[in-house]
Amino acid sequence: MSTAGQKARAVVLVSGGLDSATTLAMAQAQGYDCYALSFDYGQRHRIELAAAQRVAQGAREHRVIKLDLRAIGGSALTDSAIAVPKSSSGEETAAGIPVTYVPARNTIFLAYALGWAEVLAARHIFIGVNAVDYSGYPDCRPEFIAAFQAMASLATKAGVEGQGIRIHTPLIQLSKADIIREGTRLGVDYRATISCYDPDPAGRACAGCDACHLRAAGFSAAGVADPTRYQSPLIAGQTAE
Amino acid sequence: MSTAGQKARAVVLVSGGLDSATTLAMAQAQGYDCYALSFDYGQRHRIELAAAQRVAQGAREHRVIKLDLRAIGGSALTDSAIAVPKSSSGEETAAGIPVTYVPARNTIFLAYALGWAEVLAARHIFIGVNAVDYSGYPDCRPEFIAAFQAMASLATKAGVEGQGIRIHTPLIQLSKADIIREGTRLGVDYRATISCYDPDPAGRACAGCDACHLRAAGFSAAGVADPTRYQSPLIAGQTAE
Repeated sequence: MSTAGQKARAVVLVSGGLDSATTLAMAQAQGYDCYALSFDYGQRHRIELAAAQRVAQGAREHRVIKLDLRAIGGSALTDSAIAVPKSSSGEETAAGIPVTYVPARNTIFLAYALGWAEVLAARHIFIGVNAVDYSGYPDCRPEFIAAFQAMASLATKAGVEGQGIRIHTPLIQLSKADIIREGTRLGVDYRATISCYDPDPAGRACAGCDACHLRAAGFSAAGVADPTRYQSPLIAGQTAE
Repeated sequence: MSTAGQKARAVVLVSGGLDSATTLAMAQAQGYDCYALSFDYGQRHRIELAAAQRVAQGAREHRVIKLDLRAIGGSALTDSAIAVPKSSSGEETAAGIPVTYVPARNTIFLAYALGWAEVLAARHIFIGVNAVDYSGYPDCRPEFIAAFQAMASLATKAGVEGQGIRIHTPLIQLSKADIIREGTRLGVDYRATISCYDPDPAGRACAGCDACHLRAAGFSAAGVADPTRYQSPLIAGQTAE
């Protein structure tokens, strides 16, 4: 039996962003046989799917599930009638829940991950949610993840047979700088990733959205050179002009 | 303000089957303003989508979300490599979890319903799951629904604001005969519905699958004439030849 055959399987959600790339590297470092799952959900930043393909190259398998969140609407990320907001500073994230929130997105993504995990007989799902720099999304909170795990264990054959599903969130208490430091230690190539909510067709980051600011501030705080390609200098001077 | 405007909104999952048609009628009878949601998920029995359109005519709005559960696989209902089993008797359902189980299907369906509910500012979701004649699907059990409701209330803006989501399962403790009697009382036209896992292109039921047997036995026990069109007489003589 190969070494890979003895490893526990895990489904890892891979968006092509910095967080999920780090999550995949951490799952692999923990010894899991990783099955990467991405979604083509009508997002504006479709360039992130190309990033997901690059990030997932190290996984045993990578599937992209096509789904249409536009049928539901309600978010700047999937609804062209709502503009992506630009903040004037990286420190300034919206006080409430931002318009970039996609209704029930993580619930839907985790539901698919659960389905694939059941087919693979995998009892582990990794998701790179973060409760520190989380932009106020309700479905990034630890209490949501705990509730999803409890539900997932009842939803499946494994649950009926008394075996639970475990949702791993290795980033949940890490700052963006901690994430970048850990990923750098594990050899993650962050040039392959994209975080921006509103990149240009060449994949260059807008330098103005919350995700850009959080990312740039993270590289700065981690003391790691920022490999991100920007369309213009960062607004409010996160990096030197 | 119209009467409809004063009603609480509810998202109702409508498959085109007997159970969801009854659920929609019950939600309407309880005074909810109903938004019907169906899924085009690569099911073999696509004829059920036409039935869903007929059933949902009484709802305020009907959306069909296209999604591809074949990308996950693992079920006779979506994977052409797995045959739909024929039982020799309506009493004989599989002892364990049948191959017609679609991994995480109700979790995925409810996740979409949750997303649409959030956009609609609806705090009610109706699903026609049943724990009596449930064919052994883990995601039809009351404990699964309770866990999903707990998770859903944490997943959304409403949850953050302290308002919960309620998952209504009005059929959960009803026998198939009870469901048919209640639907008949409310004026449901069961000719519009289809329950069969393996209908022919004309929409006629196979008369052999578990769903056909449960349905036929339900009409028989309810003392209601069965309006179902079958391809052939019911196997094992649930009705007279």
